[in-house]
Order: sequence, then C-alpha cells, then structure tokens
Amino acid sequence: MKIAVLPGDGIGPEIVAQAVKVLKALNLNLTMTEAPIGGAGYEAAGDPLPDATLQLAKDSDAVLLGAVGDWKYDKLERHLRPERGLLRIRKELNLFANLRPALLYPELAGASTLKPEIVSGLDLMIIRELTGDIYFGQPRGISTLENGEREGINTMRYNESEIKRIGRVAFDIAMKRNKKVCSVDKANVLETTELWRQVMIELSAEYPEVELSHMYVDNAAMQLIRAPKQFDVMVTGNIFGDILSDEASMLTGSIGMLPSASLDANNKGMYEPSHGSAPDIAGKDIANPLATILSAAMMLRYTFNDEANAVKIENACKKALAQGYRTADIATEGCNLVGCNAMGDAVVAA
Amino acid sequence: MKIAVLPGDGIGPEIVAQAVKVLKALNLNLTMTEAPIGGAGYEAAGDPLPDATLQLAKDSDAVLLGAVGDWKYDKLERHLRPERGLLRIRKELNLFANLRPALLYPELAGASTLKPEIVSGLDLMIIRELTGDIYFGQPRGISTLENGEREGINTMRYNESEIKRIGRVAFDIAMKRNKKVCSVDKANVLETTELWRQVMIELSAEYPEVELSHMYVDNAAMQLIRAPKQFDVMVTGNIFGDILSDEASMLTGSIGMLPSASLDANNKGMYEPSHGSAPDIAGKDIANPLATILSAAMMLRYTFNDEANAVKIENACKKALAQGYRTADIATEGCNLVGCNAMGDAVVAA
Ligand SMILES: CC(C)[C@H](C(=O)O)[C@@H](O)C(=O)O
Ligand SMILES: CC(C)[C@H](C(=O)O)[C@@H](O)C(=O)O
Repeated sequence: MKIAVLPGDGIGPEIVAQAVKVLKALNLNLTMTEAPIGGAGYEAAGDPLPDATLQLAKDSDAVLLGAVGDWKYDKLERHLRPERGLLRIRKELNLFANLRPALLYPELAGASTLKPEIVSGLDLMIIRELTGDIYFGQPRGISTLENGEREGINTMRYNESEIKRIGRVAFDIAMKRNKKVCSVDKANVLETTELWRQVMIELSAEYPEVELSHMYVDNAAMQLIRAPKQFDVMVTGNIFGDILSDEASMLTGSIGMLPSASLDANNKGMYEPSHGSAPDIAGKDIANPLATILSAAMMLRYTFNDEANAVKIENACKKALAQGYRTADIATEGCNLVGCNAMGDAVVAA
Repeated sequence: MKIAVLPGDGIGPEIVAQAVKVLKALNLNLTMTEAPIGGAGYEAAGDPLPDATLQLAKDSDAVLLGAVGDWKYDKLERHLRPERGLLRIRKELNLFANLRPALLYPELAGASTLKPEIVSGLDLMIIRELTGDIYFGQPRGISTLENGEREGINTMRYNESEIKRIGRVAFDIAMKRNKKVCSVDKANVLETTELWRQVMIELSAEYPEVELSHMYVDNAAMQLIRAPKQFDVMVTGNIFGDILSDEASMLTGSIGMLPSASLDANNKGMYEPSHGSAPDIAGKDIANPLATILSAAMMLRYTFNDEANAVKIENACKKALAQGYRTADIATEGCNLVGCNAMGDAVVAA
C-alpha cells in the first residue's frame, strides 16, 4: 500500500508528521514517500505541483496532504500560487468526491459558538463535487471590453454524468448512515442546478430506501445555523460545497478536529484536514494534528477498506481527548495542554 | 411621493397591510397604489410581473413589496414562476444595490441559536450586488451534448463599472457607520472575483477613512459563525450575497424582524422583508409584520431622505417590543402574544 505524503506549507509538515507517526504505530504494510506541494513545491521546483510530485501521487494508492498556502506567496503570478497545486492535483487525479464530515466531539461541545442543544451530537456529512462547476469551467478570465472596461467571467458547468457520479457517492454513503440525502442547489435561478436537481431525482429511483430532499443554497446556509441536526448527508456542487462545508465545520467550533477525503471513482483518495495551513503558528509545535490524524483514519477506511484500523485511530483520538489532552485551539480550563508533537504521542499511546 | 404597493403571495398581503397602516399613520403626502406580482401576478394576468405592475413600479418613486412564491406554482414553467417576477423587476428597475442589515434586537437575543456573547449587539450591513453575476449572465441554459448527455451552464460575469458602483454604495454606507468594509470574493479561484478585488482596492483610494479588507467567501461563511461582530459593512456579488445575507440574518434567530432595500443609482428603491412568503401560515393573521414595517422605514430613509420619520417607525417597533408585544415566531414565555394585525396596531400606537 503506497502513500504519497505531501506536507505542504505552514503547519503542514508538523501535523502530517503526527499522522505518519500514528500510521507507523499500526504496523501496517505501508510505503510512505514524501514530496513537496504548494509553496513548498514552488520553492523546490518552481511549480506548486512539481511533475515528480504529481507522478508520485499517480503511482500511489492514496495521498496524505497537510495544507497549502502562505501569505508570502500572495504576490506570485496566479499559476504559481500554492492553491493552484491543490486544484491541479484534484483535477489530475480525478478526485471528484470530497467528503467533509462535521462532527461534534462531546468533550469539545463548549467550543462551538452555537448553543449546546443546537449542536450537541451533530454528525453531518457533506459531499462536495470537487472537479467540476465554476472552479474549472471554460470560458473564464479577465478581458477588456470594446469600451475599454475590464470584464471577468467564469462558467458554471455540469453535465449529467458528473452529477450522477457524485450523487451516487452521496446515496451510497447515506445507505451506511441515516438514509437521508439533502441535495443543495439554486434551481430557482440557475439552470445548471436545475439539471442537478433533475438528475438527483432520477438517481434516487435506484435508492428507494433513501429519503431525498432538496434545498436552495441560501436556505441551506440558514438551516445549518437554525437546526443543523436535521441533516444526515448533504450533497452539492463545488462552489456551494466550498461555502457550506466551511460553514458546517465552524458549527463545531473546532475545525482543528475535522478531516476530509477526496476520492476518485476507484476509491483512490487524497486525505487532508479541513483547516488551512495557518502560517502564523507554523513551526511552533502548537498546531492541532487531530484533523490530519483523523484524515489518515479516513484513508484506511475509504481507500484501504480497513475499517478496523480506521476505528482504532478514531478511538485513540477520542481517548486522548477523554484523557484531557488538548492543543491550544481547543484548550479549556484544567485541561492537559500539549503541543502538536505531544498530541501525536498521546494518540499513539492511546 | 408615489409608492407602488405589491403585496405578492403567501403572507405578503397581511404584512404589507400593516406597513401601509403605519405609513398612513404618519400623515405624509404619499400616494400608494396596489398591483399584483409573483403568483398573484400570474393569477391576475398570466405573468409573474404583469406589464401594468411594471409600469406602475416605473412610474413610482418607491416599491413596497411583500413576498413572492407559493408551492402551488412549483409546477409552472420556469418563466411563469413567482420568483421570475422578482428577478425581472430588480433588473428592469436597475436595482443593483441590495442592503440587508442583520441587527439583533436586545429583547430578542434569546431567539438566536448562537451564544449571547457572540451575537449580542450584532449590527452588520450586507451590501449585495443584485442585477449582475451568475443570476443574469449569458450564456446559460440546459443543452444536449453530442454524446446525448444533458449539460447545464451559467455564466458569472462582472464588469468594472458594475463592481465600482456597488463598491461605492458600500463605502458610502460605511462612512455613515463604523468605516469598515469587508469585500467578499473567491479571488483565489475565480477570475471574475479577482477583478472584483482589484476594483475594490482601486476604489478604496477615494475613501481613505474607510478600512477595506478582503475575505474569501468560504472563510466569510465561517467567520459569520465564529465572530460575526468583527464585521461592519460586507460587500459582495449577487450569488455570494444571496447565501451570506441569509446566513447572517439567521444569526439573529429572528428573520421576521429584518428588512431590506434594493436601490438604483438615484435611490429609487424596492423595499421588502428579508424573509419569504411563508404560504403555510398565510391568511392566519399570525405572521410577523415588523420586517415589512421596518422596510417602510428604510424607504423613508433611502428614497425619501426622511430620516426623522424612518427613526420614528424604528423606535415605534422597538417600543412595541419593549412593551412585550410578540408575534408567534418571536414569542417567549410571559410575552403579550399578538397576531399580525394587532402587531401593526401596536406599532401605530407606539
Ligand atoms: C484553497 C482553495 C482553492 C480551496 C477551494 O476553494 O477548494 C479550499 O478553500 C478548500 O475548500 O479546499
Ligand atoms: C427567490 C430568489 C430568486 C431570491 C434570490 O435568489 O435572489 C431570494 O432568495 C432573495 O434572496 O431575494
């Protein structure tokens, strides 16, 4: 089982090191190879996704990613910026299914800015389409009009099979959960999402046990705040999913805890924390590695079909929390405040 | 001063009647004329925006709108559905600037699903561009590809002058508030919003006193939950504004309280509650008319430049709340529960 390990920028290297440590502690037959991406890719090879990194990722069964981005690259030309590396690897590996759980750990309920009764027990899975939509649609760009003014355009675009394959992921996952899928669109305004809704309805015929509902994206943004526990699985396009999955993760108040998976059609996947590269705290050994460690658990579950070891990691994370270990972002009075590395050790020990 | 009164669908007629009552009580020199829109327009003239309604709106100085939409029109062809009337009137009247305040009334702090310390004193103004972006961009539609599959496309599109004029509205309003503008975009992915960001930066040179910041839309969706009071004025495009303004309004927990204004370049405006037509409670005299009454206050402020009477209405609404009057949506134990009509009377009395 070959894993490409791409630490990336900011806190990426420290948090990924903890996940690697946890994976090694399981004594599985894993080959892990490191390569640079994002700003680190630019530094090493003048490219946020160096050819060698892409090749390694293609040759591997799974990718473990830290995070990309740092303000110091803000001035680079668009195609050299760290996030380009991220967008390109998603597209090159055809990782169309982004799974973003929003799960509230009982120990961390207080971290939410929402009232406990609204979020306690929250366990929601957002499935975001990741290789289509306005992120990749052509035509796009900034041009100059006849009157000398600049104009920007981008194209939202989905075809039937793209919608169907992400819908299938959502329905399949719902079958293993509470059998409810809420498809989010803006079908009252955008024809692209009118097609999205039609295809979801057609597909639902194959999943008679799953209850399919539809919600406009503006309403979904409200309902996530009003009553987030009404949702089981939410499925939506790339841009709406970008917004809603971040909103949903913030409901928990502890985005340092939330993993993510991005899968292709054969369950090859890239696994990364939902949070960013946090360059302001990089290198200080204070970052929370749990989201990355939990991403490694998702890797075992989705790519290597090893539910037992996935659960083992997840339980170890919970145990470390129950034992009072906390990094600074989730610290509370009386906790056992530890750094990034020590949190990794606590999970290994647990 | 001519006002077109468009009650629309669902609870529209009842809530608009209260705002009309309040305006009449002020004894101003107003001519108010009613016309159908949305489902009501379709019933009356087979068109969600009948010609006569559009003409009346064009001939008036301001439009007071209730709400449009009812499930019973869901099966109509796209161009006949109620929301088409809304989108068309925005475009026909060139109402490019949508002002959506999210204000938490101290008496209603408990209604929020967020913790009191996070939202108490919240007073945020979202400025949403309303006549451009992917809502209106061409090309758009669903077509059949060569391989027989359907494909949907929509076009996000902004030119410089569209961005500049909405930016100006945001900066001007910030000058009367706390002099902070946060411009929301997705400049790391979408070129259209890269242009948006550039134009905002250029424009900010004319407003040296205003502090301009930029935020990606996914982060904005998080920050609204994490720490909404960090914002003063937020400005963004049509689709992001649709999502974020609904999210922000739900932070207050009482969207029955939130008005909105949609202005053209000469402060002609359409005023309507931020909430929808709620057909499930229509005709029961239980809807909350305060958002519509407060929209009438915005009308006096922005179109008729009558700050004194605007404040008079706003104070009367606050007084009615302070006196304990509550409609069902904002009721709490021990309050004076009243219907829609009685709430209108309470505001008139106050
Ligand atoms: C960094 C950015 C390009 C990326 C995205 O918009 O997809 C990020 O926000 C995410 O959600 O992974
Ligand atoms: C009804 C719909 C077309 C409309 C919109 O998306 O603009 C509504 O959500 C709004 O925000 O006024």
